[in-house]
Amino acid sequence: MSVFTVQHTDGDARTGVLATAHGDVATPAFMPVATQGSVKSLDPADLRAVDARIVLGNTYHLYLRPGVDIVELHGGLHRFMAWDGPILTDSGGFQGFSLEHLRKIDEDGILFKSHVDGSMHKLTPESAIEHQQRLGADVIMPLDVCVAADADKEAVEAAVEQTNRWAERCKEAHTRKDQLLFGIVQGGLFPGLRQRSAEFLTSLGFPGYSIGGLSVGESKEAMYEGTGAAVSLLPVDAPRYLMGVGSPEDLVECVARGIDMFDCVLPTRIARNGALFSRDGRINIVSAPHRRRDEPLEAGCDCYTCQTFSAAYVHHMFKSGELLAYRLASIHNLRFILRLMDEMRVAIATGTFEEYRTAFHDRFVPPDQRARHEQKTKWLQSQGRPGV
Amino acid sequence: MSVFTVQHTDGDARTGVLATAHGDVATPAFMPVATQGSVKSLDPADLRAVDARIVLGNTYHLYLRPGVDIVELHGGLHRFMAWDGPILTDSGGFQGFSLEHLRKIDEDGILFKSHVDGSMHKLTPESAIEHQQRLGADVIMPLDVCVAADADKEAVEAAVEQTNRWAERCKEAHTRKDQLLFGIVQGGLFPGLRQRSAEFLTSLGFPGYSIGGLSVGESKEAMYEGTGAAVSLLPVDAPRYLMGVGSPEDLVECVARGIDMFDCVLPTRIARNGALFSRDGRINIVSAPHRRRDEPLEAGCDCYTCQTFSAAYVHHMFKSGELLAYRLASIHNLRFILRLMDEMRVAIATGTFEEYRTAFHDRFVPPDQRARHEQKTKWLQSQGRPGV
Repeated sequence: MSVFTVQHTDGDARTGVLATAHGDVATPAFMPVATQGSVKSLDPADLRAVDARIVLGNTYHLYLRPGVDIVELHGGLHRFMAWDGPILTDSGGFQGFSLEHLRKIDEDGILFKSHVDGSMHKLTPESAIEHQQRLGADVIMPLDVCVAADADKEAVEAAVEQTNRWAERCKEAHTRKDQLLFGIVQGGLFPGLRQRSAEFLTSLGFPGYSIGGLSVGESKEAMYEGTGAAVSLLPVDAPRYLMGVGSPEDLVECVARGIDMFDCVLPTRIARNGALFSRDGRINIVSAPHRRRDEPLEAGCDCYTCQTFSAAYVHHMFKSGELLAYRLASIHNLRFILRLMDEMRVAIATGTFEEYRTAFHDRFVPPDQRARHEQKTKWLQSQGRPGV
Repeated sequence: MSVFTVQHTDGDARTGVLATAHGDVATPAFMPVATQGSVKSLDPADLRAVDARIVLGNTYHLYLRPGVDIVELHGGLHRFMAWDGPILTDSGGFQGFSLEHLRKIDEDGILFKSHVDGSMHKLTPESAIEHQQRLGADVIMPLDVCVAADADKEAVEAAVEQTNRWAERCKEAHTRKDQLLFGIVQGGLFPGLRQRSAEFLTSLGFPGYSIGGLSVGESKEAMYEGTGAAVSLLPVDAPRYLMGVGSPEDLVECVARGIDMFDCVLPTRIARNGALFSRDGRINIVSAPHRRRDEPLEAGCDCYTCQTFSAAYVHHMFKSGELLAYRLASIHNLRFILRLMDEMRVAIATGTFEEYRTAFHDRFVPPDQRARHEQKTKWLQSQGRPGV
């Protein structure tokens, strides 16, 4: 029995349903990130209210704190964080990439230094699976090696080979059958390497495939192209999860290329800095024009924040350093993203996705602003800040 | 028609109902403090869920930021902060005391320097009333002069005389009849001065009386004695509001002395430091014993936090620096205080308040720990920290 059913297609975009032990997930789906067992500033009721269907937890963080034993004591992550819907955990491998100064990789696994207390820990394919089995998520990831966008071909090739060998060991170690273990395609922007990765993983056979190693510093065009290329190598009847992508424009473009699942901290991270999504682009709520705006942040938005408070109140919460600011902003941005996913599912089901895509981009980043926006985003990224 | 009805008495303690333009308030009542238009980390739905009946806003803070004009643009504080229940605002006078280095007091009013941008502002009895009329709270306060517990008799006498003259000017300036303007009794711990203050204010006639100038550094015994003395000078048919008091033990002792209304930041402030109330005393949730506690913070508590999460999860939120920690802890402490008020109202109505009071103290601070607790609280207060 397949865990994934494609329901509608429109060009390369598609809708589907992923069946998990904690319920079905309508795709394309966006997963809010609960790094340490909490989507920052939000509680499970907030997640239900924005209509989140599945959330992501980080094995690396949960393993270090509170520790897998504490989560297991609660019968797993679902009860620990009081979220009874589907959960996906990553393997911890990505932190081996993003916290690069902390780690050493060899055939056996990743040796890393805890950012919490400086203690040394080893993550192997087998222990990554064991941790995730004990955390009890519905969808889990194998340990993989991720490299930066500017890595040379030899480094990417080594990462692909290592990821492939680890995928085999992970599959072997995975015994808990109520969890879905995905494969992770690597290969950077090298078509041959990405093909080698995809062929090996599909020959092993997984119920779903993640696409890793994108959105790690390359241009948006290269990321979109890499996404499309990776999708074309994967079976049509398995879900495709593009890891770490989640700006509104990227979600639309990658759904167009056949992606079914996404996760990203961007919507909640920029919310905490006062950058809020609207159909007409991003708003800096802290800026002066919002001081007197006795109207919702975004006209027509059905989120709790917009239904309850004025833009002026949210502006005041930020200016006054009130903790409520972070929650109100996070609710709005997540609801914006999840409404976007809803609308894309409807557009795909009704065969109007191309119109939707064009109309979305024309409002969100009008053509005359696009070059400027791209330039600003690149600059911000080069400074290690999320593109705003 | 009186705005306040005493319903039951038990010794000096009593229950009653205060009628306001935004609904009735059952007394004794505790008012959570929404300093800048938000009870820190909570939203109006949270306040309803903990069963808050009335909240307090600070005129000084709201006047400086966002500005009275912005609140007025929203039709007043109720709609601005999306709270449709009763609101009480203070006059800003207390900040003239607590932010002492910022101010200069003369016959006309208080000249103070904004902590936000350093600009100079003058608060007069007339402008304090005007601001509060524009903010639109249901119960408002006159401008008063508050002095520290260790002030000499001349200083206290001057404060009483000034407060009395300002009370007259405030009453004159107050034209908005849907708001209740209380009088504020001063006089520190000097019986004669407190009597002079009470006699003058009651001769002017107010629908309710606040007791100021207590809980400003004196011992608990002196505060209790001063409270009892002030109450005995006030009319039985008017509500008595003890400003700035709100630890569980003080609430019980001051209800016993006939107080009807309280406000205090302590429950939410200490919550954000991880100090949580339980019937058996205060808990430091950040401490190691809570790491593995897969059970609610406090057995039998009906708050959202205790009904949804384990103590171990709340501990983890604090240890990980998650924003959710502040909200979960604030919900618990406020619900604890509001349940305490509920229980006291029932005990008074059923003539069992003395038993309730004894049983509460024996569990919350058992007799053998009382001396140690007092000592620790005094030390913390001497360090400028709330007693824990």
